[in-house]
Amino acid sequence: MTTHMRREIDEIPEAAARLLDRSDSTLRDAGRAIGARDPHFVVTVARGSSDHAATFMKYAIELTAGLAVASVGPSVTSVYGRKLRLAGSACLAISQSGRSPDIVAMAEGARAGGALTVAVTNMADSPLAAVCEHAIDIMAGPERSVAATKTFVNSAIAGLALMAHATEDAALLTALQALPDDLARAVRCDWMGLADALDDDGSLFVLGRGPTLAIAGEAALKFKETCFMHAEAYSAAEVMHGPLALVEPGFPVLVLAARDMAEASLAETADELTVKGAAVSVTSVLARKAAHLPHVATGHPLTDALALIVPFYGFVEAFARRRGLDPDRPRNLRKVTETR
Amino acid sequence: MTTHMRREIDEIPEAAARLLDRSDSTLRDAGRAIGARDPHFVVTVARGSSDHAATFMKYAIELTAGLAVASVGPSVTSVYGRKLRLAGSACLAISQSGRSPDIVAMAEGARAGGALTVAVTNMADSPLAAVCEHAIDIMAGPERSVAATKTFVNSAIAGLALMAHATEDAALLTALQALPDDLARAVRCDWMGLADALDDDGSLFVLGRGPTLAIAGEAALKFKETCFMHAEAYSAAEVMHGPLALVEPGFPVLVLAARDMAEASLAETADELTVKGAAVSVTSVLARKAAHLPHVATGHPLTDALALIVPFYGFVEAFARRRGLDPDRPRNLRKVTETR
Repeated sequence: MTTHMRREIDEIPEAAARLLDRSDSTLRDAGRAIGARDPHFVVTVARGSSDHAATFMKYAIELTAGLAVASVGPSVTSVYGRKLRLAGSACLAISQSGRSPDIVAMAEGARAGGALTVAVTNMADSPLAAVCEHAIDIMAGPERSVAATKTFVNSAIAGLALMAHATEDAALLTALQALPDDLARAVRCDWMGLADALDDDGSLFVLGRGPTLAIAGEAALKFKETCFMHAEAYSAAEVMHGPLALVEPGFPVLVLAARDMAEASLAETADELTVKGAAVSVTSVLARKAAHLPHVATGHPLTDALALIVPFYGFVEAFARRRGLDPDRPRNLRKVTETR
Repeated sequence: MTTHMRREIDEIPEAAARLLDRSDSTLRDAGRAIGARDPHFVVTVARGSSDHAATFMKYAIELTAGLAVASVGPSVTSVYGRKLRLAGSACLAISQSGRSPDIVAMAEGARAGGALTVAVTNMADSPLAAVCEHAIDIMAGPERSVAATKTFVNSAIAGLALMAHATEDAALLTALQALPDDLARAVRCDWMGLADALDDDGSLFVLGRGPTLAIAGEAALKFKETCFMHAEAYSAAEVMHGPLALVEPGFPVLVLAARDMAEASLAETADELTVKGAAVSVTSVLARKAAHLPHVATGHPLTDALALIVPFYGFVEAFARRRGLDPDRPRNLRKVTETR
């Protein structure tokens, strides 16, 4: 029997195409509004998988527009009662359901304080969409799996499209048009080679740098949700500080590299960790010692990073089942978590 | 034989007093300069333990000044060659040694781009101090343990003092004056009660919210460095999303609560996790089911959060030795990591 999660992974290319088609004008309008406002900085508000999409947007915004991006915890307002001074910023609030009360309140406060607010949701008629100046419907369709997949990908694509329009980046717009086909190829990439390194171990690191660090965060969360494995995401630079202490012979490490300026250093880190005895797999042919994982080439380094999550999702769903788990029923979890 | 780490933990109160005394005028000048500049936002640049101090500053800045704080990875410039547009911001660069080339380059670029730059280092004559407009010497004295302790505390205190001066917060300034004595009491708090929950387990969560989330990040890193345990820090709100899947009977959770507006919700989370079978310890008497850990009362919620790290450091050093490890010699690590 096919799980919801597997079915929704297969829907990723189609969902991406639907977003780029049907939300094209709202993405363009909101993106151009960001460009016209020329904000001093950007803030993101999100939780869970949506917060990993926000982290992906952070790197995309830094690299395309050169703007600093602050991830603000909604608790500053909801728990501490502090209003942030966000005049002159653009505020991106990302939530599949669009109805976590603390995120809605933060977006409302940001708009009242003079920020340009953009909601990114999978529910066009949600409270979050209602309180923001611009609302992007990510058009992912119903997501039944507790573990988000296609909504993560579409939220990240929405972020890329917003910035491509904001900065009038023709190369990125072209790459986005081709992305659904690239993702269809990514769905067919087989990462089961990863399984051997993982079978006996409950703990692992997922490494990235820049945009792939966001993808690593999302992958680590999915390992927890579906496989009950303690995966933690780290910057490949940061891991060489304290976290390296955990790396003993056989310790599994997944290194996510895109075809960008960080690829060589990620491949080097993958090889260094292999020499220390870790069981390392990496999505780069530049590594000489670590095991290679297949990946698809896309039209832009940022879409290249995003496409890596698709074969990962396929892997983690299959690996959970191989461990006798039901990826549709993570322990202790419900689909919508409302945080106050 | 006493370890370097233990000796340096014992030095924390004295080091804090030295910072507040000898760097008083540079803290006041830099803090007032931040207040006078009235920045649109703040950026922090740091790695490792210093980045946890930066996260602590983020919450302190949000709560005292209502400014959004962006943590920028130095790799945006050092790897991707992208200059960030930081005009109108205040940029805090934190590094014990003050000589990681990518952090120096990012601070230099920030200043050239119009940011007000402040270096927070333990080396007054470092390259980082040289390139910034203001340089705070945290006066922690030589730190021989690979695992940073007193430099973390002093970096965080420097951040609090900067913001207290920037916002002319008399209550926070008063609390800071009393802090060395509070920390002397914190050194004597005994957290060995935590050990029973941990003995058989390699994996755990450390939870916080707002300022204590930064302390949780620092604690999780120390578990890795000194005990080779896979501790991961989570927001108490965030953990109720996917990460909850890891929580099975006996799973250890350390919940760090300060006497602030998040205390009640943290105590509630601690109790909920206890009901799910987790082995939970919490620094709040508001919890009814989770085990209580002793803590000291300080003069301000922010210093209260910071003081929690001191008994934790004492615990983790002793726990490492109990496991037959030498906390002064973490596996695979050197004291200074230079990232390019």
